[in-house]
Amino acid sequence: MKEHIKGYAYGEAGLEHSPVTKQDLELLKKTLLWSDDDNRFLKMAGDVLQDQTDAVLDLWYNYVGSNEHLVYYFGENGKPNEHYLSAVRVRFKQWILDLCHRPYDQAWLDYQHEIAKRHHSTKKNQTDQVQAVPIVHFRYIVAFIYPITVTIKDFLKKKGHSQEDVEGMYNAWFKAVTLTALLWCHPFVHQGEF
Amino acid sequence: MKEHIKGYAYGEAGLEHSPVTKQDLELLKKTLLWSDDDNRFLKMAGDVLQDQTDAVLDLWYNYVGSNEHLVYYFGENGKPNEHYLSAVRVRFKQWILDLCHRPYDQAWLDYQHEIAKRHHSTKKNQTDQVQAVPIVHFRYIVAFIYPITVTIKDFLKKKGHSQEDVEGMYNAWFKAVTLTALLWCHPFVHQGEF
Ligand code: HEM
Ligand code: HEM
Repeated sequence: MKEHIKGYAYGEAGLEHSPVTKQDLELLKKTLLWSDDDNRFLKMAGDVLQDQTDAVLDLWYNYVGSNEHLVYYFGENGKPNEHYLSAVRVRFKQWILDLCHRPYDQAWLDYQHEIAKRHHSTKKNQTDQVQAVPIVHFRYIVAFIYPITVTIKDFLKKKGHSQEDVEGMYNAWFKAVTLTALLWCHPFVHQGEF
Repeated sequence: MKEHIKGYAYGEAGLEHSPVTKQDLELLKKTLLWSDDDNRFLKMAGDVLQDQTDAVLDLWYNYVGSNEHLVYYFGENGKPNEHYLSAVRVRFKQWILDLCHRPYDQAWLDYQHEIAKRHHSTKKNQTDQVQAVPIVHFRYIVAFIYPITVTIKDFLKKKGHSQEDVEGMYNAWFKAVTLTALLWCHPFVHQGEF
């Protein structure tokens, strides 16, 4: 049985519906040159990453922690909140698997919208009931597409797959992260301009 | 001598200053793990792409042209404007070289802000004095990071560089495109949230 993850609300009935429709999502996937191969490679990536999520999170947290202007968002008055950091970390680990294994259906869209609000002042800090700066600035959400993408490659190589499979998994991951990041920007964008 | 490119205003004194400061830019580059190697690899990429820009643009225009929901932004009433498409194409070619060869200084920042406004209702259609839809929607600007990045790799391989150099150029290009795309989103984002 799956352990309960504090604050993880995937599939819960009470979630607000995403403002992005399934038809919008199809056009976004088309823009990202999404194919059936990407579904297959994402699943493969999920299997490869399954037992490596702690190592991935160590790397990412080390990156955030060693950049004052980033760890800033996990605290206030220049002091990171350790409770906040570790509560988010557990959901972040689950996100890696969800990105790879979940179908991109209405429940997936709705949880993307929930995560979007959790990065925005709409809902930041509420899930973990913490006092911290009120918003993650937009610029870094898009910027993170780069580190979150490139750092995954070494982990994708660790299970002896061919170079072709690694490239396939890597490109599917790149697409999925780009899609995720842009969906999470919705609360930051002027009405009608998204 | 360089040919004059219609509507290309890089370095012109009349441009509005970017709302993003050079200090902001440094933090963004840090977030993107930018190093001196990236400067070197970007220059290398510019040299490799210099005589291939037409082939790159053929590929990108074919991609946009074969996606109704994208070519949409180059016209109105479902009809693409050929004059608009070809006027933009010339500046788009120049952008490839600027991305690789220009120093990322105040003039560079200011022209990113100008291009941002040209994708937004603030200034879309004005440069080429065309009638077309009033704005490029935000979602596709971030989504384009993927196709604009991956499609460049084959061109980077064409001049006999080592795999290591190709990877170096490719990653520097990925960073530069991500940086560019996020700067271009400024006009779409709520005040104070960028
Ligand atoms: C591609 C970009 C990003 C990814 C993939 C990502 C991933 C995640 C995930 C999976 C969560 C937990 C979501 C949940 O509650 O289930 C989360 C929360 C959080 N992230 Fe991000 N993130 C990104 C950008 C950023 C940036 C740039 C920052 C700033 C350093 C940041 C800071 C935070 C914070 C503070 C939370 C907790 C929000 C809350 O109060 O609920 N994230 N992120
Ligand atoms: C990473 C994303 C993108 C890149 C690198 C890019 C690149 C460019 C460049 C270099 C220009 C000319 C700038 C100048 O005037 O000097 C331009 C203009 C334009 N782009 Fe993009 N673009 C991106 C996203 C998009 C998207 C998603 C669309 C929608 C299909 C789009 C449609 C246009 C249009 C309509 C113009 C002309 C704007 C005007 O009226 O001045 N662009 N783009």
